[in-house]
Amino acid sequence: MREYCFGVDVGGTTVKIGLIRTNGEIVEKWEIPSDTSNNGENILSDICASLDEKMEQWNMTPNDIEGVGIGLPGPVLSNGTVLNCVNLGWGTFNVSEKLSQLFHGVPVKADNDANVAALGEDWLGAGKEFDSIVMLTLGTGVGGGVVINNRIVQGFNGGAGEVGHITLNEEETEECGCGRKGCLEQYCSATGVVRLAKRYMEAHGEPTKMRDMNPLACRDVFNLAKEGDAAAIEVVKQMAEYMGKGLGIIASVVNPQAFVIGGGVSKAGQYLIDNIEGYYRDNCFAPCSNAEVRLAELGNDAGIIGAAALVTRSEETVILD
Amino acid sequence: MREYCFGVDVGGTTVKIGLIRTNGEIVEKWEIPSDTSNNGENILSDICASLDEKMEQWNMTPNDIEGVGIGLPGPVLSNGTVLNCVNLGWGTFNVSEKLSQLFHGVPVKADNDANVAALGEDWLGAGKEFDSIVMLTLGTGVGGGVVINNRIVQGFNGGAGEVGHITLNEEETEECGCGRKGCLEQYCSATGVVRLAKRYMEAHGEPTKMRDMNPLACRDVFNLAKEGDAAAIEVVKQMAEYMGKGLGIIASVVNPQAFVIGGGVSKAGQYLIDNIEGYYRDNCFAPCSNAEVRLAELGNDAGIIGAAALVTRSEETVILD
Repeated sequence: MREYCFGVDVGGTTVKIGLIRTNGEIVEKWEIPSDTSNNGENILSDICASLDEKMEQWNMTPNDIEGVGIGLPGPVLSNGTVLNCVNLGWGTFNVSEKLSQLFHGVPVKADNDANVAALGEDWLGAGKEFDSIVMLTLGTGVGGGVVINNRIVQGFNGGAGEVGHITLNEEETEECGCGRKGCLEQYCSATGVVRLAKRYMEAHGEPTKMRDMNPLACRDVFNLAKEGDAAAIEVVKQMAEYMGKGLGIIASVVNPQAFVIGGGVSKAGQYLIDNIEGYYRDNCFAPCSNAEVRLAELGNDAGIIGAAALVTRSEETVILD
Repeated sequence: MREYCFGVDVGGTTVKIGLIRTNGEIVEKWEIPSDTSNNGENILSDICASLDEKMEQWNMTPNDIEGVGIGLPGPVLSNGTVLNCVNLGWGTFNVSEKLSQLFHGVPVKADNDANVAALGEDWLGAGKEFDSIVMLTLGTGVGGGVVINNRIVQGFNGGAGEVGHITLNEEETEECGCGRKGCLEQYCSATGVVRLAKRYMEAHGEPTKMRDMNPLACRDVFNLAKEGDAAAIEVVKQMAEYMGKGLGIIASVVNPQAFVIGGGVSKAGQYLIDNIEGYYRDNCFAPCSNAEVRLAELGNDAGIIGAAALVTRSEETVILD
């Protein structure tokens, strides 16, 4: 394997890029803006220009580069076809082929950003001692990635790991972004936690400092809970119970060695994990209830490291006969 | 690969055995009783004696045999260790090693029977055109198997595919066999369907031929529903709604190409599938809602064929570097 690869993490505002040794060491990382004008038609050429510039700085040629891994904010099929990245303005096309054509024919592997983050955590982060993990990224929404035997499970339509849309509450009256009701994401995303808090305050008259926050943010709820605010503690428990039930369900499907929890909400730290863990073990078929629950470790680097892992952990399944 | 293998499907009453060509053709199949006396200590030696006898009849030596695959009614780890097969009286030991020692050092691969059935359907049955399927076996309980890229997902504790214990109903008052409440198995197993029917009859005064059946069996419910019995139709709808919700949840975790439905309850045929399918598509995150839902095709042979598939589809994942 060659010594270097690039890991690219494309978001709706910025593209994070890393020049990474194939042993996992980050040589340099930087960002460029995501130009979403004209349906994002410049994004890939902007990335190429940035990679070329970096190669020149480091006096490298394409022959030094094992490949480029790229994480995208939308579903990606196993052949590299991206399906409607609405945040980028993209329709459906094969991003691996196109980027490879633009970038000197260097091999390109693409996958969904939540899957890529999971693979990064499995390679060098909280899951590095495990073969099989499920990562949940708790941000504005809830993304997920399932890694089995160190490979991402992409699924038929790139939809594996969409655990934010597991239905947990038949009684829910508000709609999730997906058009259905009662999804995990409605309770465990940052917006979901705030929604739970507002509901709690409407239903209960007790004083709570949450009422003084305007606007109330997810981190306020966790900070106040840690300070002992009784209402905030109740909201965290509600969120953690939904998370625990969700993990219990996922465990009875794929029985991973560990769950890795990342995204902005996970900045609440070990306090979040401690709250979730009991609900998971109590709400799970016993033989599947002993996965570890851990905080993600790679933070904002998960995307570029996971994208690099698409290259460095490239695998082929060989049927022995 | 050598020309023959044995597929062994161990149940609490009988052991089904197949002499199978490694291309999948069944040469001969037969059964021996499961001797569960003395904690099942004779089961493996009885199997060996039967395999030896069959090799003699066919004038074969161990050199003609690629391997032995064995499906067991309990959790099995990836190294072949079985964990407490209560139906057989077994504790925890490495069944692959032990059977191989007894049977001329021929390689043995072991897995859980529901996983093995899923692999069999994926190889030669309803899933043969797919790489990734989830099979649900609806019998006295509900077993499951998850096959990704033509390999069984075993899980950390052999607990992957335990989809019968996905919690679907927070309001359930009766306990599942697992000690929890509201599991899919409580509604979608043969006993679960009868339980739903009894509940329905208690809650509704309307006449139904289900009241004339004593004892009422799962197949009666489906037969009466097909004949137009309004109450039986309602019970089937209830069961199908739980199944649909369960498939929706599973799909958002692993997004398979197809669900394969087997076990005694599936003898209700396409009528069962037609009832389930709509509930699945309506209760699933849209990008994961287009898996095919199919009846299992291998019937009682799924166990021996799937066990043979443990041998014939033996794979190694090679990390290219």
